[in-house]
Amino acid sequence: MAKTKAKSEDPKKLSKKAAKAAAKSGKKAKKPGSAEDRSVDADAADPALAPVPETTAEIEDWATPPREALGVVDGFQIRDFDAAATPGWTGSRAEAEARLAALGEEMSELQERLFAEGRSGGRRAVLLVIQGLDTAGKGGIVRHVIGMVDPQGVSLRSFGVPTQEERSHHYLWRIDRSLPPGGKIGVFDRSQYEDVLVVRVDGLAPLEEIEARYEEINQFEKALVDRETYVVKVALVVSPQEQYQRLRERLERPDKHWKFSLGDLKVRAKRPAYDEAYQLVLERTNTSWAPWYVIPADNKWFARLAVAELLVQALRDLDLTWPAADFDVTAAMAELDAQQQ
Amino acid sequence: MAKTKAKSEDPKKLSKKAAKAAAKSGKKAKKPGSAEDRSVDADAADPALAPVPETTAEIEDWATPPREALGVVDGFQIRDFDAAATPGWTGSRAEAEARLAALGEEMSELQERLFAEGRSGGRRAVLLVIQGLDTAGKGGIVRHVIGMVDPQGVSLRSFGVPTQEERSHHYLWRIDRSLPPGGKIGVFDRSQYEDVLVVRVDGLAPLEEIEARYEEINQFEKALVDRETYVVKVALVVSPQEQYQRLRERLERPDKHWKFSLGDLKVRAKRPAYDEAYQLVLERTNTSWAPWYVIPADNKWFARLAVAELLVQALRDLDLTWPAADFDVTAAMAELDAQQQ
Repeated sequence: MAKTKAKSEDPKKLSKKAAKAAAKSGKKAKKPGSAEDRSVDADAADPALAPVPETTAEIEDWATPPREALGVVDGFQIRDFDAAATPGWTGSRAEAEARLAALGEEMSELQERLFAEGRSGGRRAVLLVIQGLDTAGKGGIVRHVIGMVDPQGVSLRSFGVPTQEERSHHYLWRIDRSLPPGGKIGVFDRSQYEDVLVVRVDGLAPLEEIEARYEEINQFEKALVDRETYVVKVALVVSPQEQYQRLRERLERPDKHWKFSLGDLKVRAKRPAYDEAYQLVLERTNTSWAPWYVIPADNKWFARLAVAELLVQALRDLDLTWPAADFDVTAAMAELDAQQQ
Repeated sequence: MAKTKAKSEDPKKLSKKAAKAAAKSGKKAKKPGSAEDRSVDADAADPALAPVPETTAEIEDWATPPREALGVVDGFQIRDFDAAATPGWTGSRAEAEARLAALGEEMSELQERLFAEGRSGGRRAVLLVIQGLDTAGKGGIVRHVIGMVDPQGVSLRSFGVPTQEERSHHYLWRIDRSLPPGGKIGVFDRSQYEDVLVVRVDGLAPLEEIEARYEEINQFEKALVDRETYVVKVALVVSPQEQYQRLRERLERPDKHWKFSLGDLKVRAKRPAYDEAYQLVLERTNTSWAPWYVIPADNKWFARLAVAELLVQALRDLDLTWPAADFDVTAAMAELDAQQQ
């Protein structure tokens, strides 16, 4: 299983790590075991404290880095979007799957560091917001991308039709109380954006109120990032043709009937209105602190790779290390050894 | 990744499935494609609705079935328990790991069926209660066993020192509100049993009150099972020697310091009192509706395999199928096709 172990026990890899760490801190890589290595900068040479090596397998297959390839550019028009494309990726599907597995190892290691930081009082967290129409593959992202890391480090929340209690509050109330605590990767399967998507399309709130929400959401997310909950927003886009195939499969296979509801057909019939609503979201809430990434989702393997890349990148940006002991390690060892006598 | 797909697309396997389904229902296996096959009992022959084939890989390596090998027998004494044993298992570590991966596939498939049932209004759930001292490997079980299934189907809760709010309620209050909803596998990392373990050892409640709790917990669990939340209780037991090694490692490795706290040494010094408290738990709360399984945990690979076996067995007992459509499938297909024109 990919997630079992991210830390390498291969001594060759470890010295690569140390070299990389040294390179990063602007120092020459030292020969392992040299006097210099043992004295100065021992931490950087300590594999346990070295940065996690980045996933390089098949990195050359991203002609354009994922953030750049998937970000929203000026003049972006969702109606012209090619949901079957694999922007920036030049590798094969098999290469994408190999890279996803490698990213899983890195994600697992970074997630453990984040979790450790949280346990030591750290408040930093990452929040992955997943939006997309029925069959766009939101559940698959949770299963195949988030499923690569330790469940203990994940805080997952799905947002459906608001309950009566939720409706009696401001629309951000249920979002606010579902935020990940420090040390966790939060995952929203649908989110605050439903309140400017389905709510707009179906006219579930006065237009004036909806119009005010975009900026309100921007400010809400700004506050999140200010308190160190880093937001990664992905919109999965499936083409009407592919959606047809996926819904057809849900109807043809008795083991998929439970995934289908007649409501899916009603939503599907409103695709142009949903496209417009998504267009507004991408235009108005694509902020510097919480930018959108638009993921072509006709190829599930590409969508999973793309989201994994973006999530791992967000984790890398945190420069996670292991928290220092808040106790006297030598004294603790002595006490433990004394107990064992 | 092990969890990607449990459903086989190998036609040979599918006909085995059908044969097994037929065998289970006491009917002769039919030749695929025969008139009889197409008419009567078509559902059993439909691979999508056939029971999940049980994991048979290396099954012969369990000389005694896991429930029997790990259950609490009359006269059980925790002080004589061999935490390094692998009761019932005659295979190698490598065989155990292969079997764990196979169990992961089956667990993943069964979990999806349970989830589907929950989405269709079903209330059934499974609750895995994990108890064990520091370093016994509770977190590893979550990571390596629970981590094999879709995070969407899991409801995980860790119980630490009660918060002020929790303390202001009955000790079962926080348990009650953390129960898994229908369709989920709930996981408790520590549980209601802390209120007769640490609370007993440290005298945090009047003895009379603690004494009443065992029966109270039994009745609480009885009510759970009555409303179809099936309880699987595992006590991981690590030997003092192995615990010493694991704590030593946490102190020696800077990337493990965060897992250590000075409190661990205090708890370790009270091992005899904890053994007594565990003994009472196993004697008094080993009910027919929620029996205990005692897992020797010095070998992590064995503990993980053992818990996976018990969890999968609990899921098998539910005889999970796919929920029937609550809509007219033919009409829905026609509507979908009409939209696509």
